[in-house]
Amino acid sequence: MEIDVSQAQVSDEDIFTGHEGGKLSVTATYPIKQARDLSIAYTPGVAQVSRAIADDTTLAARYTWANRLVAVVSDGTAVLGLGDIGAKASLPVMEGKSVLFKTFANLDSIPLVLDTTDVDEIVETLVRLRPSFGAVNLEDISAPRCFELEAKLIEALDCPVMHDDQHGTAIVVLAALRGANMVLDRALHDQRVVISGAGAAGIACAKILRAAGVGDVTVLDSKGIIHSGRDNLNAVKAELAENTNSQGLRGGLAEALKGADVFIGLSSSTVEESLLATMAPKPIVFALSNPDPEVHPEVAAKYAAVVATGRSDFPNQINNVLAFPGVFKGALDAGASAITENMKLAAAEAIASVAADSLAVDHIVPSPLDPRVAPEVAKLVAKAAESDGVATTVAR
Amino acid sequence: MEIDVSQAQVSDEDIFTGHEGGKLSVTATYPIKQARDLSIAYTPGVAQVSRAIADDTTLAARYTWANRLVAVVSDGTAVLGLGDIGAKASLPVMEGKSVLFKTFANLDSIPLVLDTTDVDEIVETLVRLRPSFGAVNLEDISAPRCFELEAKLIEALDCPVMHDDQHGTAIVVLAALRGANMVLDRALHDQRVVISGAGAAGIACAKILRAAGVGDVTVLDSKGIIHSGRDNLNAVKAELAENTNSQGLRGGLAEALKGADVFIGLSSSTVEESLLATMAPKPIVFALSNPDPEVHPEVAAKYAAVVATGRSDFPNQINNVLAFPGVFKGALDAGASAITENMKLAAAEAIASVAADSLAVDHIVPSPLDPRVAPEVAKLVAKAAESDGVATTVAR
Repeated sequence: MEIDVSQAQVSDEDIFTGHEGGKLSVTATYPIKQARDLSIAYTPGVAQVSRAIADDTTLAARYTWANRLVAVVSDGTAVLGLGDIGAKASLPVMEGKSVLFKTFANLDSIPLVLDTTDVDEIVETLVRLRPSFGAVNLEDISAPRCFELEAKLIEALDCPVMHDDQHGTAIVVLAALRGANMVLDRALHDQRVVISGAGAAGIACAKILRAAGVGDVTVLDSKGIIHSGRDNLNAVKAELAENTNSQGLRGGLAEALKGADVFIGLSSSTVEESLLATMAPKPIVFALSNPDPEVHPEVAAKYAAVVATGRSDFPNQINNVLAFPGVFKGALDAGASAITENMKLAAAEAIASVAADSLAVDHIVPSPLDPRVAPEVAKLVAKAAESDGVATTVAR
Repeated sequence: MEIDVSQAQVSDEDIFTGHEGGKLSVTATYPIKQARDLSIAYTPGVAQVSRAIADDTTLAARYTWANRLVAVVSDGTAVLGLGDIGAKASLPVMEGKSVLFKTFANLDSIPLVLDTTDVDEIVETLVRLRPSFGAVNLEDISAPRCFELEAKLIEALDCPVMHDDQHGTAIVVLAALRGANMVLDRALHDQRVVISGAGAAGIACAKILRAAGVGDVTVLDSKGIIHSGRDNLNAVKAELAENTNSQGLRGGLAEALKGADVFIGLSSSTVEESLLATMAPKPIVFALSNPDPEVHPEVAAKYAAVVATGRSDFPNQINNVLAFPGVFKGALDAGASAITENMKLAAAEAIASVAADSLAVDHIVPSPLDPRVAPEVAKLVAKAAESDGVATTVAR
C-alpha cells in the first residue's frame, strides 16, 4: 500500500486569511429591486403569508426556510482535539460545518453556539427556538454529556437531531469497513473488531457496527477493555459492557488486539508496532486520531492489508463530511421527525456504494470532495426514513 | 398635494410564489473547491483559528461572522396588524427583515423566532446564545412586554439591542417631521404634536420627539389623553404622563387635536375629518396605520400642508426600512456596546439629510429604496457611538 504525502503545505497566513470576517453570509433568495418586490417580500404582502401559516401551521414548511435549515449547535466543550475551549472559540468550526453543508448538500445552516454547558439548559434553549429551524446537528460536545444531551433532545424535539461526532463518524467508519471488506473479500459479520476509545465516536461506532451485524466488538477506554466485571462504569459504558466483548476479554490493548481482524483507533493514544504484529494476518487498521494517528500509516502498512486515517494527506481519509451533509439533506427532504438507526445504516451503504466502482486498498471510501456522495446518501436516507415510518408528507 | 395611486397591484399568487421555500439562504464566503480549501476552512486548519480565539477572545470579532451578524428576534405576539399569531407564523416577516438588512446595508442576519412569550425566558435564551451574534433586532413583540424585554436585554447583553417597532418607527417619524418642517419653514421645537396610540411605536415616538427638542407632545391611548390624573396607568404610561402633555389636557382626540400642529397616527383607529378642521392652520398629518391609515390621505390633504402614511402607494411613505439597516450597520461597524439615544437621533438626521436635496411637500423623506440612505445612517450612527463612548476598537 502506497502512501501519498505530496499535498501542498498550508501556511498559518493562508489559514487566518481564509477565516477573516468569518466564513458565512446570509443572502436573499427573493432580492428587492423595486417597490413591488418590497410589497411582496415584506409589507403589506407578507401579512397574507403569515396569516395563512397562523391558520394552518403546516404551511410553515412551504413558506419559510425553517424546514430546510439545520442548526449547528455546540457548547464548545470538545472542539476538535482542543477540548473545552468555549462557545466563542468553537464558532470557526461551526461556520466551517455550515460551509460544508452548503458545499456538499446545498443545505442552509446556521451556527448556534451556547454559553452554557448545562444539558437541560441547552435542551430548553433549543425547544424555545424550535420554530426557527428544521434539524439539529450537535457538534463538539464532550462525552458523556453528549449522550445525555442527544437523548434528551431527540425526546424533546419532533425533528432530526444527530450528534455528528458520534454518528457521522460511525457512519463513515462502517462505510469504510464495508469498503475494506469488499476489497479483501471478507465478510463483515465474521470480523473481530477492536475499538480504542470510548468517547462519543467510539461508543457510536460500537453501536452501528453491532447494528450492521458485526458479532464481536471490543471497546477500550483509558483504563483498558470494557467488560461487565469493571467497577464505576458510567451508564453508557455499562450498557456497552453488556452488549460487546462477547469473549469476555480483560486487560489492555495487548489482550484486545491479539488475533483481532480490525483495529479502529478513536482515542488520541498510540499503538505499538509490536501489537499490530499480534493481530490476525493482514488486518484492517483505521488509525483515526487527528492530527496524529494512533500509528503512522507507513508503520501500519507493514502489517495491515488496508490502512485508513482521518487525514487528508494519506489515502483512505475517513472524514465525517462524507456522511452529515447527505444525512441531514435526506432527513429534511423526507420531512423526517427523527434520524433512525436504519437511516444511519443506509447512509453507510450509500457511501460504500459510491466507492464500489473504483474500489482498491487505497480507495475504500470516496474522496471527501466526491460530489456524488451527498446526493446518494440523501436519497437512501430519505428512503429509509419512509420505510421506518418517520417521514412526513410535507409540501415542499 | 397630489396623490399617486398608480402602483401596480400585486396578486395573491405573486405573494405566495415569492415566499415559496422561504426567502433566505446561507452561503459560504470561503467556498470549498479543492482539498486544500477543506484543510483551511475546516480541519486541520480551523483548529489554529479556534485555538487563537480561545487564547484571546477578542479575536472572535475578526475571525468569525458573529460580530457582523444581527439576530432578528420575535415571539410572534404583535405581528404587523395581525396580533399574536405565534412564532411560526411570524417567521416570514423575520425572513423579510433579513432580506431588507441584506438589501440595504449588506448586513447578515438570522431570524430567531421563539416558542415562548415569557420575557425572562427570552432574555435567558439570548444570553445563552450571545456568542452566536453581534446585535439583536427585536421585532413584533407586544406592548407593554416589549418595553420590559428591551430594557432587560440591554441590561443583560453587551451588544446593540433595539426593538425596531419602537425605535425604527420613531427615528423615521422624527426624520419625516424634520423634512416636513424644512419644507414648511417651521421650527421643530415650536410644534404642538399629538400622537394617537401608546403602543410600542407611540411611546418611542413621544420619547424621541422630546429628545429632539419638541416641547409639547400629547399622547392618547384607547381611553383618551394620557395625563397624570388617570388611574391604572402602567409604568410606561405613568412615566409618559409625567413627561408629556405639558398643558395638562384631558379628554379625547377632539380635545387633543384642537389647535395642534402635528398629528401622528399609530393607533389603527380613525380620525374624523371634522377634527382635522380644528387643528392649527395647515397642519402636518402622519396617518401611519397599515394597511388602513387613520384618515385617507386625500381627505387629510384638504386641511394639511403635508400628509404622510405608511403605505407605498401614497407619497411620503414612512417606512422603518429607512432606519434599521443603517442603524445596525453603524452600530456594528463601531463595535458599539449599545444603541444610545444620540445614535437614534443621528439616524434621523441622516435620513432627513438625504431627503434634503429634493425636498417637497410630497417628498419629506427619501424613498424606502433610496440606496444612499443606509450608508449615510450607518456613518452618522457610528460617529454618534464614538461620541457617546460606546464604540469599541474592534479589529474588523
